[in-house]
Amino acid sequence: MKLTILGCYSATPRADAHPTAQVLQIKNHQFLLDCGEGTQRQLRKYKISFARIKHIFITHLHGDHVYGLIGFISTMSLLNRQQELNVYGPKGIKELIDVQLKLSKSRVSFPLNFHELSSKKPQLIFEDEKVSVETIPLEHRVYTNGYLFKEKLGERKLLIKEAEKYNIDVAFYNNIKAGKDVVLDDGKIIPNEKLTAPPPPPKSYAFCTDTVYKPDIVEQIKNVTTLYHEATFQEDKLDLCEFTKHSTAKQAGMIAKQANAGKLILGHYSSRYKNLKGFKTEAETVFPHVELAEDGKVFNL
Amino acid sequence: MKLTILGCYSATPRADAHPTAQVLQIKNHQFLLDCGEGTQRQLRKYKISFARIKHIFITHLHGDHVYGLIGFISTMSLLNRQQELNVYGPKGIKELIDVQLKLSKSRVSFPLNFHELSSKKPQLIFEDEKVSVETIPLEHRVYTNGYLFKEKLGERKLLIKEAEKYNIDVAFYNNIKAGKDVVLDDGKIIPNEKLTAPPPPPKSYAFCTDTVYKPDIVEQIKNVTTLYHEATFQEDKLDLCEFTKHSTAKQAGMIAKQANAGKLILGHYSSRYKNLKGFKTEAETVFPHVELAEDGKVFNL
Repeated sequence: MKLTILGCYSATPRADAHPTAQVLQIKNHQFLLDCGEGTQRQLRKYKISFARIKHIFITHLHGDHVYGLIGFISTMSLLNRQQELNVYGPKGIKELIDVQLKLSKSRVSFPLNFHELSSKKPQLIFEDEKVSVETIPLEHRVYTNGYLFKEKLGERKLLIKEAEKYNIDVAFYNNIKAGKDVVLDDGKIIPNEKLTAPPPPPKSYAFCTDTVYKPDIVEQIKNVTTLYHEATFQEDKLDLCEFTKHSTAKQAGMIAKQANAGKLILGHYSSRYKNLKGFKTEAETVFPHVELAEDGKVFNL
Repeated sequence: MKLTILGCYSATPRADAHPTAQVLQIKNHQFLLDCGEGTQRQLRKYKISFARIKHIFITHLHGDHVYGLIGFISTMSLLNRQQELNVYGPKGIKELIDVQLKLSKSRVSFPLNFHELSSKKPQLIFEDEKVSVETIPLEHRVYTNGYLFKEKLGERKLLIKEAEKYNIDVAFYNNIKAGKDVVLDDGKIIPNEKLTAPPPPPKSYAFCTDTVYKPDIVEQIKNVTTLYHEATFQEDKLDLCEFTKHSTAKQAGMIAKQANAGKLILGHYSSRYKNLKGFKTEAETVFPHVELAEDGKVFNL
């Protein structure tokens, strides 16, 4: 699982700071999470294949999370993409894109599927044999969802040397990997645990932006491997959080602690803070494993 | 008159190339011409005041000329701009912005006036005592206008030493600058030409993108000081020009020559050309004074 931060700053732009967008590589997928203005240039800059992105998850319809989507779609069409693209996001996102395509008289060269969300409860919105994606309902000034990406438990790993020790025919290997015991010719049973090692524990990633401090998400993200939680402000601006529906770095740390997260990544910094260290220091007062998102930074999770 | 190129490449983005946007400083104005994705970051990068931009001229509704407009407007609102902003562009531009503001539940903090265009003939769309702006109807795959910016002829310049030679009272100076002769106490008439120098010749700038080769614009832009004309292709791709409704560098040179332009600036290069020199060389086969637009380049016109 690998996370590339394309942008992690809040709305007011700076020459050297991009709005929210990130790419999550998980199993065979390359998911795009949010798509602020300039995301397509950032994808180019960090040499991430446009074609491999088949699913885009948008948290909410504020511009710093979605204004790059129309440009990404238009470019895919210019490049004559054929493969379908799935966009998950709040109700209205289809209209947002359709109006712009209509007014520019643009056709889309590929099947573009919108999955519009309006539920206020967690929903399973994507699943295949290796990965699932659920919404995490958040609370912001507009309808907003975070997303929880979970690997599924893989197959047990065959210990070939052990199997050879018992002269087990390779024809049985698939059964063993599927968890079955083996009955030898002499009737002796070799339990599966002797022939396999457990699969690596499945990893998970929770992407939570933008939101007020909302402890009722903790149950859903319990024991998450990595939590990305917005930290627009520090505690000196706690009063602004309720008004703007954002969180402080300390509040992000509190969520990580309560959820027993493996790691917390902070982002969505307000441009009023010139130095990011204060976010880390503040979150570390409640939770020890804190990292700072930065444009272009890659996390191997 | 000063022109700053924020972006000058055609639609397919590259990490190091921005879509069309430029800032024209003319007299006391700072006009924004087109607004491709990422324009607000480019404005920051080149330290151009957002607040001084009061008029934005959009040529057409293809994404590489307008997808940065919503971000610019949103940011102006976040910064609590009060001053009105005027946007000139094809019919539909109001809907393009309004839908996005509605879906993000954003309010605009300032009067935002759209001037929607649909005429296929040149129109005077802005005028004050120093500057005028006309549309230049172009031919592209969608409704498109270029824009012609013209300084007005200024006042004649008072030659104070000459006035003093005749002991003319300063109370007469405004009349002299307005072009009047002076009658001395002895009845002698001093003609205005002896007391003033002519004003500098007014400058003009024609912004023509995107368009096929369209020689019927020549009459309107005759003797223009500086012509910016798109050159998406070179002559090797002449066949693509008619199909995509774009021009070659040579065709841009032909327009400049016929219009007797002072200077030609090329831009809107297709990303298939890795080296821009070929555009200049090709245009120079028909017109001598050619310059290449490049992101961040400033032209003192």
